[in-house]
Amino acid sequence: MTDLAQAAFAASLADFQAAALNIASDAIVTPALPLAMPDRNLFLKAECLQPLGSFKIRAAANAIGNATKAQLANGVVTASAGNFGQGIAQAAMARGLAVKVFVPETSAKIKIDALRNMGAEVELVTFADLWQIIMTRETGANGFFIHPVAELAVVMGNGSIGLEIAAQVPDVDTIVVPFGGGGLISGIALAMRALGRRVRIVACEIESATPLSAAKRAGKPVEVARGQSWIDGIGSTGVLPDMWPLLDQLVDDVIVVSHDQAAEALRMLATRAHLVAEGAGAVALAAALHPSLAGRNVVAVISGGNIDAGVYGKILQGQPV
Amino acid sequence: MTDLAQAAFAASLADFQAAALNIASDAIVTPALPLAMPDRNLFLKAECLQPLGSFKIRAAANAIGNATKAQLANGVVTASAGNFGQGIAQAAMARGLAVKVFVPETSAKIKIDALRNMGAEVELVTFADLWQIIMTRETGANGFFIHPVAELAVVMGNGSIGLEIAAQVPDVDTIVVPFGGGGLISGIALAMRALGRRVRIVACEIESATPLSAAKRAGKPVEVARGQSWIDGIGSTGVLPDMWPLLDQLVDDVIVVSHDQAAEALRMLATRAHLVAEGAGAVALAAALHPSLAGRNVVAVISGGNIDAGVYGKILQGQPV
Repeated sequence: MTDLAQAAFAASLADFQAAALNIASDAIVTPALPLAMPDRNLFLKAECLQPLGSFKIRAAANAIGNATKAQLANGVVTASAGNFGQGIAQAAMARGLAVKVFVPETSAKIKIDALRNMGAEVELVTFADLWQIIMTRETGANGFFIHPVAELAVVMGNGSIGLEIAAQVPDVDTIVVPFGGGGLISGIALAMRALGRRVRIVACEIESATPLSAAKRAGKPVEVARGQSWIDGIGSTGVLPDMWPLLDQLVDDVIVVSHDQAAEALRMLATRAHLVAEGAGAVALAAALHPSLAGRNVVAVISGGNIDAGVYGKILQGQPV
Repeated sequence: MTDLAQAAFAASLADFQAAALNIASDAIVTPALPLAMPDRNLFLKAECLQPLGSFKIRAAANAIGNATKAQLANGVVTASAGNFGQGIAQAAMARGLAVKVFVPETSAKIKIDALRNMGAEVELVTFADLWQIIMTRETGANGFFIHPVAELAVVMGNGSIGLEIAAQVPDVDTIVVPFGGGGLISGIALAMRALGRRVRIVACEIESATPLSAAKRAGKPVEVARGQSWIDGIGSTGVLPDMWPLLDQLVDDVIVVSHDQAAEALRMLATRAHLVAEGAGAVALAAALHPSLAGRNVVAVISGGNIDAGVYGKILQGQPV
């Protein structure tokens, strides 16, 4: 077992509650919105309503809030497709710290612009280079590195979503979470365990890259192909070894969603729930509508709402992207 | 003073609290979402997140919940551009009652379809005929008529929004509310008064029809022209005499918004707050951004999210409607 997994499994309910308190001034308690369905009870945990439009503010605020003054003396550095970078930038700026963010050059322009507008230094890198940073934690940059996924404070910050779900939907029996790197789903699953709640934890992936499905089949992380997709933030080429022990034990099932299903879910979020979601959030709704979850009390975590306006407009109008 | 106004002014805090309890199983407590602005504190009271996508479920549920069994023996009848009709239909269906809704023939197709899918009988009428029903309460149809605006139970149901705002944004000093018929803004204003809170109550209108601005200038309801607009639900040709005493006393100011400002606000709601709003909700945000409100703690009531998908897509892409 990795150090991270060991520390995460050892976290108590009090630890999760402390993290929730730690982020109270940075993040909101998002609503769990009922969405009427004929064959299941469905709630949307609307993380797209967070400041900056993503759950990542929770993890980012907790990671910076937990660091020591000495660690933060040269500012903070992270690597992120955008939402986590923005969260780090916001939490850091609020504390007067310098920020550098490594961003894949394929990121939506809206995310890159937002980071720069917040005062962050942005360095565009290839997806391969970004993956290298994620794997090695080595950036060559000055400053305290905060890993976007495999970081105890990140997992704990995300756990606050689990505490809220348990309070908002007391009879929840299934939680569907987009799988990006595993920090979100691990945090939620561990918080439910810390509460002593038995809930089915279902990950979802987009068809263009299914690293968690592949790892579950192989019994260990394996490299997978990564196809073209309008959905960013999820769909990497592999599961981080640091995260695997958590995912192996905490994730009960993985549902893979097609791009057509994701587009339909994105439209449903707009027309029926009046939420603007990004691709990963739509994947969560699409998976929550899977026939295998009929009859259940399901919470789908709509992880964020930062989607390129052009892409969004096309999908709303049913045009190809 | 009209009977309605007299009864409404006489309502106590306990009456508003009873209405809030009355609707607790039909409506949700919507979040007041902070939206960062350089020169004011701004919160969006996201009524677009209600079941059916509009605040009207509050009033509708309270109106039906307050009626007697004898009154409801032949079902319920209402007249509404859509959102209130849907609310009545949902609250009635949940109680096994028949529903008939008179709807202006210019309503968005999405609203008419939704009513029929819920099991309501829909009769399309001209805007003039609808206005006649609103003014006279005579429909020729069987069943208990519930007025969409000038009805004490409607005003009281809407007041629950005021109670929530006071709890969620304790230092609010300005509330901006779209003016349709006056039921929404009156309910919120009266609830704040019942709480003993002094808050500036600002109505907003779209430039194509400004009946409240005209009435405020004239000191009484006057008929105004009604231009073409992609914004429905607000912008009628006059203030109801029944409502005027309430509006005269409760509304401190009226801000008129242009279609360009409303479109820009609609885009801002999507890209920054990740909310799908309808035109009236966008008008509230546009008004809340008015220079005269700089330095204030403003809550904008985003009244609903039911917008025609084609219109919405065009506005998001900056195209003319």
